[in-house]
This record gives sequence, C-alpha cells and structure tokens, in this order.
Amino acid sequence: MAERTSESAAAAVDEARLWDRHMEMAKIGATPKGGVNRQALTPEDARARALLANWAQELGFTCAMDDIGSMYIRRPGTDADAAPVMTGSHTDSQPSGGRFDGIYGILGGLEALQAIEESGNATRRPIEVVNWTNEEASRFGSGCMGSQVYTDPAKLDGMLAMKDLEGVTIAEALAETRAAMPALAHRALKSPVAYFIEAHIEQGPELEATGNVIGVVTGIAGSRRFEIQVHGEDAHAGTTPRKRRKDAVRSAADMARALFELMDDPEDTVRFTIGRFMVTPNALAVVPGHVLFTIDFRHSEEEVLTRLGDQIEAVCQRNAGPCTVTMTETRRAPTKSFAGPVPDAILAATQRLGLAHMHIFSGAGHDARYMADLCPTGMIFVPCEKGISHNEAENAKASDLAAGARVIADTLIALANR
Amino acid sequence: MAERTSESAAAAVDEARLWDRHMEMAKIGATPKGGVNRQALTPEDARARALLANWAQELGFTCAMDDIGSMYIRRPGTDADAAPVMTGSHTDSQPSGGRFDGIYGILGGLEALQAIEESGNATRRPIEVVNWTNEEASRFGSGCMGSQVYTDPAKLDGMLAMKDLEGVTIAEALAETRAAMPALAHRALKSPVAYFIEAHIEQGPELEATGNVIGVVTGIAGSRRFEIQVHGEDAHAGTTPRKRRKDAVRSAADMARALFELMDDPEDTVRFTIGRFMVTPNALAVVPGHVLFTIDFRHSEEEVLTRLGDQIEAVCQRNAGPCTVTMTETRRAPTKSFAGPVPDAILAATQRLGLAHMHIFSGAGHDARYMADLCPTGMIFVPCEKGISHNEAENAKASDLAAGARVIADTLIALANR
Repeated sequence: MAERTSESAAAAVDEARLWDRHMEMAKIGATPKGGVNRQALTPEDARARALLANWAQELGFTCAMDDIGSMYIRRPGTDADAAPVMTGSHTDSQPSGGRFDGIYGILGGLEALQAIEESGNATRRPIEVVNWTNEEASRFGSGCMGSQVYTDPAKLDGMLAMKDLEGVTIAEALAETRAAMPALAHRALKSPVAYFIEAHIEQGPELEATGNVIGVVTGIAGSRRFEIQVHGEDAHAGTTPRKRRKDAVRSAADMARALFELMDDPEDTVRFTIGRFMVTPNALAVVPGHVLFTIDFRHSEEEVLTRLGDQIEAVCQRNAGPCTVTMTETRRAPTKSFAGPVPDAILAATQRLGLAHMHIFSGAGHDARYMADLCPTGMIFVPCEKGISHNEAENAKASDLAAGARVIADTLIALANR
Repeated sequence: MAERTSESAAAAVDEARLWDRHMEMAKIGATPKGGVNRQALTPEDARARALLANWAQELGFTCAMDDIGSMYIRRPGTDADAAPVMTGSHTDSQPSGGRFDGIYGILGGLEALQAIEESGNATRRPIEVVNWTNEEASRFGSGCMGSQVYTDPAKLDGMLAMKDLEGVTIAEALAETRAAMPALAHRALKSPVAYFIEAHIEQGPELEATGNVIGVVTGIAGSRRFEIQVHGEDAHAGTTPRKRRKDAVRSAADMARALFELMDDPEDTVRFTIGRFMVTPNALAVVPGHVLFTIDFRHSEEEVLTRLGDQIEAVCQRNAGPCTVTMTETRRAPTKSFAGPVPDAILAATQRLGLAHMHIFSGAGHDARYMADLCPTGMIFVPCEKGISHNEAENAKASDLAAGARVIADTLIALANR
C-alpha cells in the first residue's frame, strides 16, 4: 500500500540530521557574514560535490556525473526498465549567497531518499537526487546550465566554451572539478526521466507572511537578460572640458535612471535589476571610456516582458548623450506553468501530512523550468526568513526544511509507484 | 658666458634620440591600442625604472633612490656645497595611459642633461633628473606620492602602508621593485633643492589650438577627492519586490545624476569626474547591496572648490533613497601659483630660443604642486594631439618634445649658475 509506506518514509525524515548536513555544507565557502561563496565549478563547489558524493555512497547509493558535471545519486527501483523519478537542485551559490538556496533541494532530496531507504520502502521506479551544474550564473553567465544541457544536449559544446570574467572556460573549470573529486560513472544526457520535483526555499516573503509551511508552485516567471555596453572615450579628469567629454559613467547613470523609471509599475510586479556594472579603466583621475552593465528583467506575463523589454534599447539610445551604446539580449526564458501530475502529487502529499500550504508563483528561475520541457515537473517551496535570499543573511527553520523533506519523500514514493 | 653656453646645450638636444627613447620606453607595458599600462611599482614600472637607470649610468651620471622609491639621476656641479636644480616627472602611467604623460618630463630632462654634458657646459649647481614614485594614483589611491613624501617625510610611514585593490602595500610593491632593479645609492628625503622644473605634455587642447609650442605654466588647479559608499542590501533579483529593495546601484545612479547636474557650469570650468564605480556583489541576478564610487573635482578657484565641493555629501544624502551613504574626503589640494624665478627663467629661455609660447594654467595635478612648498618651482608644457591624455591614443610631435627639451636645458643652465 503506497500510502501507508509513504507515511512511514515521511516519519523517518530526521530534522536534526537534515539541519546538520546543511551546516556541514555551509562550512564550504563560508563567508564572514554567515553566508556562502561557492560559485559554480570553483574549488569550493568541488568540495561540496565531493562531500555530497561521499554521503550518497556511505548510504549505499550510486553516484554518476554527466558531460556538464551534473551529479545523479540513485536508488534503484524494482522495475529495471522504468524511468526514474528525479528530485534535486544545485550546490553552487551566488558570491554573497546563503546557506539554503539550492543546497536545500539536494539535501532535502537526500534526506527523503535516506528516509525511504530506512523505512524499507521499495518503489517501482528508481529515485534520483540530482545536483545541476551552475544554476546561479554568477561565475559563468548562463544559468541553469545543467538542466539546459540535460534537456537539450545540443547546447553542450557552446556551454563548455563559455568563459568566466578571468577567461577560464567551463571545460577547464569542469576538468579541475573532476580532478578534485572521486571518479564517478558516466551519465548520458537526456536519459529518460519520468517526473521531476525541485524543492527550494521560497526566496520571497509570502509563505512566512501567510503562515504557510509548503508552497505548491504553479509556475515560474519569464525572464529576459540584457548586456548594455556604453562606449565613450578615456580622458584626463583634470584637463578635459565637459563639452569634449564622452563620459561612459555619466551616460550609463542617465540610462539606468531612465530604465528604472520605465520599469516602475504601481502594482510592483515587475522585477528589474541592474546587477553588474563595470567601468573601464575604473581609475580615479580618468574620465571613464567604457561601461558594461547587465539587466535582469522578470515578469509573470509574457505581454509585459515583451512590451517593456522591447523598450530597453531605445531608452538607452535616448540617454546615451555623447556616447554610443550597444545592447545584446543574452537570454529569454518564457513564463512556465507546472499544471499536471507533479503539482497534484505534491498537493496530495501536503494534504496527507496535514501541512499548512498555499499555491504560489515563482519569481526566481529554477532548473525545473528546463526539466518541464522533458517531463512532468513541479516544485515545493518552504519559507525563508523575511524572504531574504541571494544574501549572506538568508535563513530558514529546521522544522520547515524537515516538513518539506517529508513532502518530497511522500511525493517521490507516490510518483515512483505510478 | 652662461647665455652662450646654454645655446650650445640647446643646440645639442637630439630630436631623434629623444623620440627613440620615448618609443623604447613605450614598449614597456605597451597596450594593444598603442598606449601603456605601467602602473606604479608594478613589474612594468620596475622595468621602466631599470631602463632609465641604465641609460643614466651609461651616460656617466649617478643614480640614487629614496625611501619611497623616487629616483635621482645626478650630474655634479662645480660647487660641491650648492643645492641642485632638479627637473623630472614620473614613469608610472594610468591603466590605459599614453606614451608621453609623465615619461616626457624624465626623458626631456635626461636629453637636456646629456646635451649639457655633450656641449661641455659646467654648472655651479648639480643638476638632477628625478623620477617621482606613483604620480598617477591609479594603483595606489594617493597620487604625487614621491613628491609628497620628499617634501614632507612625516608622510612616509602612512604611504608605505597604503594598499592597492588586491591588498598589496606600497612597502611590499616597493621591495619587489627594488629587487627587480640594480642596487642604487640612498637619497635622503627633503635634501635641499634650489629650483624645480617639471616638463609635461599639456594634456589639454590650448597649445595646439593656438599654435604655440611652449606653455609657461602659471599654476595648478586645486582639487578635492571623495569616496562615496552606498550601503543597500543584497536581494534576489527575481523575487524581491521593488518596495522591499535597497538597491545600491539605483541609489548611486540617482546620486551620480544629481551630482553631474550640480557641477554643470555654463562656462565649463568645473572638472568633475566619477572615475571609479564598483558594485558588490556585481552578479547578474542579485540586487546589489553596495556601491563605492570616487569623485575627482577640480577648479582654479578655491571659492568654487569650497562652495560646490561642500554640497556633494548633501546631494548624495538627498538621493540615497532606501540606502544609506557615507562620504570620505580623501584629499584636498589647494590651487597653487608658480610666480617667481622659475617661470621667469622658463620664459626667458623660451624667448632666447625664439619659440612660440603662451602662459597657461594646469587643470591636471603634478608633482610640481608639492615641490613648490620646498623651493621655487615652475612647469613647461608642450602640445599633445587634440588635448587627449590619460588615453592610449595620446600623441605628441617629436619636434615639440625636442623644443621643450631645449627650453629645459637652457633653463637648467641658467638656474644652475644662479
């Protein structure tokens, strides 16, 4: 009886063990303010991956790695031909990231897998916990790289050639990561997956504000990313009259202000961020000749993404002053809905476990966005303190993390027996 | 007869040799766009220093170094007790600097010294060519460091402890520079100097526009430098509503715009530059929690420096939005006038040589500003193409550089026989 056994698995979830694994992981890349800096394919990320592989193997699970470095911890099913149910998220973090973003989806999944194992639940399908490579896009500019490549292997070569700001390619960084880890079996990209579930801290304030423990995620906001380059002319700060200057910082500041005004909607539903702003030569006494800044623009409605996003270039041109401007759209990801068997199973598990819950839309992008192109997909959110994330102060409650792991365990069993 | 001999020295100035030395120096730290990146106390600066010492020693001149790394090439006078006449400038450059800024004052001085030597002119006073350490302040934030410490040795310890953006101190960088050079005799700080002359490209458009070859510099604009820190809060770019954001880039852009407006004078006499602008964490998907930007503000009138400069902090506070702001004034240098025997001698030499000339005020700061506190001081400007400087495209004519070296030679002899 699936329901009885899934209850025993949920009961075997160990809150303290799950919390302790988070704290152990948080030592890797720990920052002075209590967060983590564990950017994709750095030595810190490699140490986190090695620790994860070690934990999995100690529990008797196998661990494999694919061509972009994503890791797959596997517990076999009773049907050798059945496609697995997969859950997981990412070990990499923002440069000033928190202790729960990403890693919770992996450690919650591992806790669920251990609880299923310890409660003696056999499932028809294998169950896997995945660690997707480079979700954050903080070191290498294209995020959700692992799930993008897994679901569309044609992207592999382009991704491997991508460079960080120091000119290191993904291929080089990945080779270093592999060298710093135990050897793992090879996993083929796009191997069939029956269902995908991603658990994550909400990274927003709604669950906490409404007193809910579980968010059943209905979809992910669409996003557009842009890179703006402002081309001016280096000049001496003490001698060059204003009328002869082509000051890239001045023009970029004008563009930024006009863009923030364009994006200020009274409903506060637009998410518009200039996250990176880099000046060349960045010297005290030189009128700066070049600025590169990035735009991250998200909304739940495609119409808004198109209408406002398509105005960005013209607003920059109008505010370029004596400089020139070039714009590149580096990514466009459409709004993604999760209706189907996975959110249904998550809702059923949440109800069985008697947890306070709500439906919720994700403003953040996640690997689930790409997995939804391959198989039925859904997400589970748990609260985080004050909604603060991508911040060293990010925090969550051990009891909420455990509640989420119980939902994962129950959902995994239900889907693995379908 | 001083005038006859000074004419023979001016005649011995070799235009091709002077140009070739510039081109030889420009190979050190050469950039792809034809400029140089030879920031203070880097390996490139050390190579430039070694080449300079080598040239000096091949010509039979001695070379010494003081406690902050400034170098002194010396030709003895006939009076062993007389204080020297000194000329020179700096080997260090901006990160995207040109081939003439700074180095011309040294190579023009060396050419003059060689011409004086070759023409058999004995002078009563010794003549020295100085290379001041870190004039540009591009790597280490306090410029004119060599002349500041020479004229006020109490500043030495503080300067030695200053760090670059990587945390390397001046003391450490200086030790590396010394290790990369032949050993030089020690020169005591604040040893008496009778007169100081600094030759430099104009770094502005006036000489070229008026068809003059020599600018007799009347003074240097006052300057104030500020560092502004904007403190916000890192947050997730996809989930954080605008009303909850403390976006340091947004606030800094508002401050920058308001400051540019404050400084926009119709006469275009204010020189206001935001040269450095650094964002933390500078990641695509994180609302940035911190910005540091620098202000370089110059004017020829103290009243304007005070009136406008004193408004900077309040303008930043008014535009801080949800962020907080802290301001530090990192330097204030008053307007400096050069009236006295040195500009008189430069003018007389220019007239003797029959060169088209004008009086000119310097918007750029120079080591001459600090030397003027120690001894009678003056400056010689030569034209640079389109006034472009602090830029890899910086250019000058060989004939103008040679004309300037003739003025240096004539002026040095006149002052060294006073």
